[in-house]
Amino acid sequence: MRPASTPDPPYYAVIFTSSRTDADEKGYLETAVRMLELAAAQPGYLGVELAPGITISYWRDEESIAAWKRDAEHAAARAGGRARWYEQFEVRVARVERAYGFERTV
Amino acid sequence: MRPASTPDPPYYAVIFTSSRTDADEKGYLETAVRMLELAAAQPGYLGVELAPGITISYWRDEESIAAWKRDAEHAAARAGGRARWYEQFEVRVARVERAYGFERTV
Repeated sequence: MRPASTPDPPYYAVIFTSSRTDADEKGYLETAVRMLELAAAQPGYLGVELAPGITISYWRDEESIAAWKRDAEHAAARAGGRARWYEQFEVRVARVERAYGFERTV
Repeated sequence: MRPASTPDPPYYAVIFTSSRTDADEKGYLETAVRMLELAAAQPGYLGVELAPGITISYWRDEESIAAWKRDAEHAAARAGGRARWYEQFEVRVARVERAYGFERTV
């Protein structure tokens, strides 16, 4: 996966690790896409990295994360996740303190 | 993915996001498995979450991360990654400040 283009630290990462039920796949996918769109429009959003079972979103600061958590449509989606889509999940909020990268040049 | 069983924060996450070349797949996989085994035996290792393009390892503190980075076999593997296996990657070291989880009970 191409890494998200994030600024120099510090910034924040929200690591969402999940295992899914097999319920309501269509509803899950529609909601997931909608949440990615909504998140990307939030103030302080820096980027997202998405793989099966892991979603990492990057944010400018804690206040940006708190504001996104207060979004009503996001709250409804989280309720759907607990009611139907997730068997288990863990959310970790972490402050990125340093970062370095590599890009092949030849 | 079943979330790693981590203690109460604070602890550290190393987020490794990568895109691969198509070179030396067998060598890559053998090395990746070996690195997972070696990391798991390090002091301060708390767990790992692995998905295509994203590996997150969890550590007790910065010193544990620094010691793992000094491991000679790990250093050789990283050199292999830059020489052959990765098109691009980003490493982010982050301090997990809070965490919460959900597990379905019915």
